[in-house]
Amino acid sequence: MLEKASVQLSYIKMDIGIISTAKSFDGVQGVYSHTAQSTHCDMTFAVFMPPQHKECAVPVLWYLSGLTCSHSNVMDKGEYRRLASELGIAIVCPDTSPRGNHVPDEADNWQFGSGAGFYLDATEAPFNKNYQMYSYVVDELPKVIEEHFNVDMDRQGIMGHSMGGHGALTIALKNDRRYKSCSAFSPIVAPSDAEWSKSAFVKYLGEDKVHWAQYDAVKLIADGHRFDSFLVDQGVADSFLDDGLRPWLLQAECEKAGISLELRMQDGYDHSYNFISTFMGDHIKWHHSFLAD
Amino acid sequence: MLEKASVQLSYIKMDIGIISTAKSFDGVQGVYSHTAQSTHCDMTFAVFMPPQHKECAVPVLWYLSGLTCSHSNVMDKGEYRRLASELGIAIVCPDTSPRGNHVPDEADNWQFGSGAGFYLDATEAPFNKNYQMYSYVVDELPKVIEEHFNVDMDRQGIMGHSMGGHGALTIALKNDRRYKSCSAFSPIVAPSDAEWSKSAFVKYLGEDKVHWAQYDAVKLIADGHRFDSFLVDQGVADSFLDDGLRPWLLQAECEKAGISLELRMQDGYDHSYNFISTFMGDHIKWHHSFLAD
Repeated sequence: MLEKASVQLSYIKMDIGIISTAKSFDGVQGVYSHTAQSTHCDMTFAVFMPPQHKECAVPVLWYLSGLTCSHSNVMDKGEYRRLASELGIAIVCPDTSPRGNHVPDEADNWQFGSGAGFYLDATEAPFNKNYQMYSYVVDELPKVIEEHFNVDMDRQGIMGHSMGGHGALTIALKNDRRYKSCSAFSPIVAPSDAEWSKSAFVKYLGEDKVHWAQYDAVKLIADGHRFDSFLVDQGVADSFLDDGLRPWLLQAECEKAGISLELRMQDGYDHSYNFISTFMGDHIKWHHSFLAD
Repeated sequence: MLEKASVQLSYIKMDIGIISTAKSFDGVQGVYSHTAQSTHCDMTFAVFMPPQHKECAVPVLWYLSGLTCSHSNVMDKGEYRRLASELGIAIVCPDTSPRGNHVPDEADNWQFGSGAGFYLDATEAPFNKNYQMYSYVVDELPKVIEEHFNVDMDRQGIMGHSMGGHGALTIALKNDRRYKSCSAFSPIVAPSDAEWSKSAFVKYLGEDKVHWAQYDAVKLIADGHRFDSFLVDQGVADSFLDDGLRPWLLQAECEKAGISLELRMQDGYDHSYNFISTFMGDHIKWHHSFLAD
């Protein structure tokens, strides 16, 4: 594996392109692109490799971003590199949707289309060709990461923010043997009932709500899906708390199901990266407790 | 002072405007604007107030940004809040130049005009009306900070990056009793001789290089200005190292003058915030050693 461990990333094969790499916190923060089969477009993603990747395969922590974001918001503002470097964890940050001139979109709608893939596989035309973000994040991108980076895919955790918190919770619940840990910042816990996500679900999945439940954390738990434990941080001053996020619905469902949920209502914090960066260290340490050798 | 210490910032007087405030790392990251007398335009600046400001006046650490930046680059990417909160230091981030439709500029030139004020007081028309960034940072903005925030102006430190590193070094050398500490990331140490700053100095200060020396750290030291000690970090993979930055010139001059300079050449690091954020914690701890009670 040594050639895969070069800081110069000379091991990158030609089927992914290097947009940029920079040394940071003694590791490498890279941005890469590849042509994805699942979404039928070029996709960009960010990977931070901690210095330990030169010596051994490191665990992988996925970070799924929220509405309007790309891979770069958390890369710029998330403040994850210091502890990821110290604890030896790779951080992978996918984009939030397919993108490109040929990808159907609603340019004026921040809750649908570009930047709003909701980590689901669309079934409705014309969106079903490209909006396959569930398959992309769960099936395709992990293979790319495993092939190109010195990572231990038997040790994966997943976290996310807002729409990405929804993604992390639902993906963990549906793949509880794959991910050893799951956490979220201000997640949309019940998107099929939330005002700001319902209209997207109709367009991606059709009118029949039976198909929506597989992308709704609260309904997945009600339907019998399980995960050992969740850590969730939620800002009390978050303006989306009441109509979009409603973590108390997750809390009630976890209590019924006997799932351990540490829900921390953080006084005074909003929905922004000022909030996320404050608690990022706690989340990385929490994942590390599950992902360490 | 208690009313000045409210997290809600209700003490903000009407002569500065609040663009945004958000809780972060138990403190408040704010962005403010005011009409500046020295630069004859509205100026934006960022202030992070650590939680300790609710109890007592806190020391102030100035961060001066580099070419093309505003207050927001370091606020988003600098990762200063965690330690500033822990150690109880206010971080003030001014803009890098005057801005506005009425401010003369060269829109296609990233090394002059908007985003490139070089922390000097221009003497040449038409730039001398607005480009008074030395007076703004040294005289005007400190009064605003003192008036509106619960800070101890007897404990100030100053740091900066690139053009802002130049600003920090020159301002400290010219005001050695004001600032208790000074550090820099990849500073332009000799701008009057550097290819990428000479043309700006001509336009701001005229052809006579005698007037340039007051804004050149190496020449200030040669002319007898002193400061107790500097901490400088410089990435070895910085593409501007040889033609713009040249920290060895500062090192040689400090040695001659008996000024303590800790120059750390950081292998593999570039000129970006990937580099700055990596060593921000070291710099804040270093300033804290001078600014603590």
